[in-house]
Amino acid sequence: MKIVTVLGARPQFIKACMLSRLLQDDDTINEIIVHTGQHYDKNMSDVFFTQLQLPAPDYNLGAGSGSHGKQTAAMMIHLEEVINTEKPDIVLVYGDTNSTLAGSLAAAKLHVPVAHVEAGLRSFNKRMPEEINRVVTDHLSSILFAPSQAAVDHLAREGIRDGVYQTGDIMYDAVLHYKEKAFHQSDIFERLQIEAKDYYLATVHRAENTDEPNRLQNILKAFQHLDKKVVFPLHPRTKRALEKGNEGTHSNILFIEPLNYLDMLVMESQAKMILTDSGGIQKEAYMLRTPCITLRKETEWEETVREKWNTLLDPADPAEWSKAVANIKVPSSYTPLFGDGNTAGQIYRIVNNLPFTTS
Amino acid sequence: MKIVTVLGARPQFIKACMLSRLLQDDDTINEIIVHTGQHYDKNMSDVFFTQLQLPAPDYNLGAGSGSHGKQTAAMMIHLEEVINTEKPDIVLVYGDTNSTLAGSLAAAKLHVPVAHVEAGLRSFNKRMPEEINRVVTDHLSSILFAPSQAAVDHLAREGIRDGVYQTGDIMYDAVLHYKEKAFHQSDIFERLQIEAKDYYLATVHRAENTDEPNRLQNILKAFQHLDKKVVFPLHPRTKRALEKGNEGTHSNILFIEPLNYLDMLVMESQAKMILTDSGGIQKEAYMLRTPCITLRKETEWEETVREKWNTLLDPADPAEWSKAVANIKVPSSYTPLFGDGNTAGQIYRIVNNLPFTTS
Ligand SMILES: O=c1ccn([C@@H]2O[C@H](COP(=O)(O)OP(=O)(O)O)[C@@H](O)[C@H]2O)c(=O)[nH]1
Ligand SMILES: O=c1ccn([C@@H]2O[C@H](COP(=O)(O)OP(=O)(O)O)[C@@H](O)[C@H]2O)c(=O)[nH]1
Repeated sequence: MKIVTVLGARPQFIKACMLSRLLQDDDTINEIIVHTGQHYDKNMSDVFFTQLQLPAPDYNLGAGSGSHGKQTAAMMIHLEEVINTEKPDIVLVYGDTNSTLAGSLAAAKLHVPVAHVEAGLRSFNKRMPEEINRVVTDHLSSILFAPSQAAVDHLAREGIRDGVYQTGDIMYDAVLHYKEKAFHQSDIFERLQIEAKDYYLATVHRAENTDEPNRLQNILKAFQHLDKKVVFPLHPRTKRALEKGNEGTHSNILFIEPLNYLDMLVMESQAKMILTDSGGIQKEAYMLRTPCITLRKETEWEETVREKWNTLLDPADPAEWSKAVANIKVPSSYTPLFGDGNTAGQIYRIVNNLPFTTS
Repeated sequence: MKIVTVLGARPQFIKACMLSRLLQDDDTINEIIVHTGQHYDKNMSDVFFTQLQLPAPDYNLGAGSGSHGKQTAAMMIHLEEVINTEKPDIVLVYGDTNSTLAGSLAAAKLHVPVAHVEAGLRSFNKRMPEEINRVVTDHLSSILFAPSQAAVDHLAREGIRDGVYQTGDIMYDAVLHYKEKAFHQSDIFERLQIEAKDYYLATVHRAENTDEPNRLQNILKAFQHLDKKVVFPLHPRTKRALEKGNEGTHSNILFIEPLNYLDMLVMESQAKMILTDSGGIQKEAYMLRTPCITLRKETEWEETVREKWNTLLDPADPAEWSKAVANIKVPSSYTPLFGDGNTAGQIYRIVNNLPFTTS
């Protein structure tokens, strides 16, 4: 069986690593990895390939820049060529980026079945580009790997019932696999001169927060007034936004470059609390039992809010902040939400049993 | 209010004409017409603008050629620029072509509400590029004009309930408006040297029929054996396919260029029967009470089959043909299925009452 895997953005490298390992180890499966180039900075891309032992991409499309339309268009054109050349049995896409959308559109139009890992997520906010990418990809997919019952339910409500498999969350596999290793290898505490439980970890990169200067400034203002230092690895988009204009004092904020995955796991698990608008980091906070504040009005990961480990906070309203942060309690109960840590294995078996010709 | 209308293919010019007239007559509405260039032959495009008095496009994108991916990509890039320049309150798209998909994707990503005319149609066959375009567009639209109860039901089954309006079918407006005129103006019978009820009218252009040489040859073979002459206006895609290879005798087939709309209405209404894989022509056959055979395994217009005016015939199976055609009876009953002929008026009123700023 031949699989074309489409990757492009940081969270996709992390989602792909555990499954790609299984696919590459199987001699009957030929996995072709395509990197769209959506993320191309060394510390947003290369470092993950090395650290997570992802095989080097067979194709590098270099379609990383431009508006949503331009980026997606460039990816589609190149992906169509790759699919026509490779003639895979399935195209495998992850998550909700423009690379996911371009991969699923190109494949579906060429009649190649699309398999979507992390299917069924919904924020119900169509102003998020990610929500558009998800919804479209799910409706173009024939094989849908849903991380949770909620995801399965969302799909069912949109009439998608065939080809849906509830497999747990593949990011949980990676957390379990890399956590111990992270603690052994990472020297991030020394490098940053910080101590466990004595800092907040923050990330911000959703368009809704970075593209409105006011919101981003509000977020920084609130970080400045928290009772502990805020370590803030800057996503390239956020960095660009801050370079455009950035007033006020930020003596309480430690701006750093994006972290590699092992350093990130250590930082997440030892933070007093995480403040983020990232989808993946909300989940990892839960998996690592670190309380989380999500800097958005809604989330795709409602379960974590219901379990009280995650709290939504509208960044438009910084007055609420210090109060909210001070009031957050570490819940005493914990329900496993993201499967058994063998999601990659389940997906691998399902893919392996699909009725395709071996090529 | 400012509206960007995205058109590109023949059926979209016909769908747009009745509504555009109302929009253009309203001084408070500024309709900008964008022609993607998907259809660019004179007799697939210009003739409809002239005959149906569609205003000349404000933008001509010239994105007509290339594979699905390339075509859609080129359209997206240009449409994004147009939307950024014009800053419309809504983007209006029609039907299910690549122009529809590109328009809705570009608009949704720029947070401009998409209004979809002919929403909710489904063939449930994802191998049809049109099915992909429809499903994606409906999930990206905030205002959905569904031609029938079945379309409303399809949308509901996919969780789309907000912003859905059942308005009837806008092509029915055009049929009613142009039918009399057609009989007065058209000299198509003289030009073709044929007589009413003494010919079959055929059109074929779906990828599933044109891209498989065998299927197309089967269709021609069956046409050759029918008991009356088959008048066959050739879609450019079908013409190209036939130029690539075309064996056998076709003395019973009258291949002609695509017809203008008025000639087409006359030909449809006076045919003994219509044989087609076109969506629009299946409906027009019903509206004009001409029995129809649909050269596909499934149809989006199930109602017409249920009412027995339309019969599905798998072109893979030419042996069945002459029997099937001979057995078709003109039904004695007729139920109006496509609204009251004032769909454009209804859509106009709904659009006009949307809560947008006048610009
Ligand atoms: O500096 C960082 C920030 C995030 N991540 C990892 O990247 C993934 C989340 O990606 P991101 O927040 O960019 O995207 P999202 O999850 O919101 O789609 C998670 O596994 C994080 O642990 C990382 O390794 N270094
Ligand atoms: O030679 C022709 C063939 C079709 N049509 C009209 O074009 C529309 C249907 O378009 P088409 O079959 O190309 O596309 P579909 O409806 O299948 O999307 C209908 O209004 C037809 O009357 C036309 O005017 N001349």
